[in-house]
Amino acid sequence: MSTARLIGIGVGPGDPELMTLKAVRALQTADVVVHFAKAGESGNARTIAAGHLPGGVEELALRYPVTTEVAKDCEAYRNAMAAFYNSAAKQIATHLDAGRQVAVICEGDPLFYGSFMHLHVRLAGRYQTDIVAGVTGMSGCWSAAATPIAQGDDVFVVLPATLPACELERRLGDADAAVIMKVGRHLGKVRAALARTGRLERAIYVARATMGDAVMLPLIDKRDDVAPYFAIVLVPGWEQQA
Amino acid sequence: MSTARLIGIGVGPGDPELMTLKAVRALQTADVVVHFAKAGESGNARTIAAGHLPGGVEELALRYPVTTEVAKDCEAYRNAMAAFYNSAAKQIATHLDAGRQVAVICEGDPLFYGSFMHLHVRLAGRYQTDIVAGVTGMSGCWSAAATPIAQGDDVFVVLPATLPACELERRLGDADAAVIMKVGRHLGKVRAALARTGRLERAIYVARATMGDAVMLPLIDKRDDVAPYFAIVLVPGWEQQA
Repeated sequence: MSTARLIGIGVGPGDPELMTLKAVRALQTADVVVHFAKAGESGNARTIAAGHLPGGVEELALRYPVTTEVAKDCEAYRNAMAAFYNSAAKQIATHLDAGRQVAVICEGDPLFYGSFMHLHVRLAGRYQTDIVAGVTGMSGCWSAAATPIAQGDDVFVVLPATLPACELERRLGDADAAVIMKVGRHLGKVRAALARTGRLERAIYVARATMGDAVMLPLIDKRDDVAPYFAIVLVPGWEQQA
Repeated sequence: MSTARLIGIGVGPGDPELMTLKAVRALQTADVVVHFAKAGESGNARTIAAGHLPGGVEELALRYPVTTEVAKDCEAYRNAMAAFYNSAAKQIATHLDAGRQVAVICEGDPLFYGSFMHLHVRLAGRYQTDIVAGVTGMSGCWSAAATPIAQGDDVFVVLPATLPACELERRLGDADAAVIMKVGRHLGKVRAALARTGRLERAIYVARATMGDAVMLPLIDKRDDVAPYFAIVLVPGWEQQA
């Protein structure tokens, strides 16, 4: 009898126009809209979807307990995040138990490097769960930069900039095309790994690609190693004509 | 004075509802809509976007000169494809020279393993070119299968199933998460590489994910090695809870 449903909705990389028709429609029927945010901020997903939230819809803002500056390999961090996701899942379950449709809006795609997955693994086994795929942040970046990224039988890899220098270098040298994520304070290391693998000349630096204040330039033209946490570097694999 | 513009429009993985608002709007103002197709077929992108083409808009269907069954490493294939893309770019340039807006609709995302890139590299240097990012085929697959694919500092890789068995095995063993594309007649080889790297149990087979007749099942439950060319195998990297 219940219409209880958990929906993970990708709202795309930033430009509200890159939301899908399905995402917009799913929001229209939601009883509760859930979004992640840092303390004191409204959250990127909330900002992207703002124009499509039903008037007066109930909202649940999930505030991360710690910031990205905390060392992620320490046990205290892991425990704090697990407690946060447990508590969030419990709040959402209360709505689902009351027969509501709960839409969790997610920047990019819900199941690709997104916080939604932590809710998904806690709830999808118990409640009807649907996913609305979204345009990923990296697609938004290479589209804004008009950079063909991979073609044909290219091997394409996504690398976190947090990898040790030698690992970054080894993996860059082993792929045709790459996206390096979470560049932030690792840009100097990333630049060196690209240079040592002969890929610096084709690398493109992108920050806030589909926001109003996008920065896009060949990495070799960027004169400093200062970058925001979510900046990425594109390494196109595709050079030939046909 | 000219409004000439080339627009590469991603129309997503198959479900027309996974088109973005931006894609739909860009189609409204197009003077010419271009799509790729096999001989005798209307093409997936055309089928996906059909409900959003302006009435009576001029269409240009680009028919691939050869099929996917041809050996791709032979020179005759490369020459035939280069001539095809050269001719296609020339036809589009004629429209652009006449000041028209030319929309090339592309399954998935235009710059991620798509035919549009062959036009892009031939035309973007000469004409104003915009890209509308789309939901990729692989996002459509893992969303339809409700399978979290990659998280945190995972290394994620896209591998063509055409790789030699030893390369597939080496690269699967070296990544946290993977998508194996163009599975087709390579499924037996893919299955063996997954087994040898301890990843067979978590692999998920997906064919036609966002079409009406989707097939999704754990690869280990698939009893034969028969698969369509565009089938993919998902190897989720993410197993823990938080």
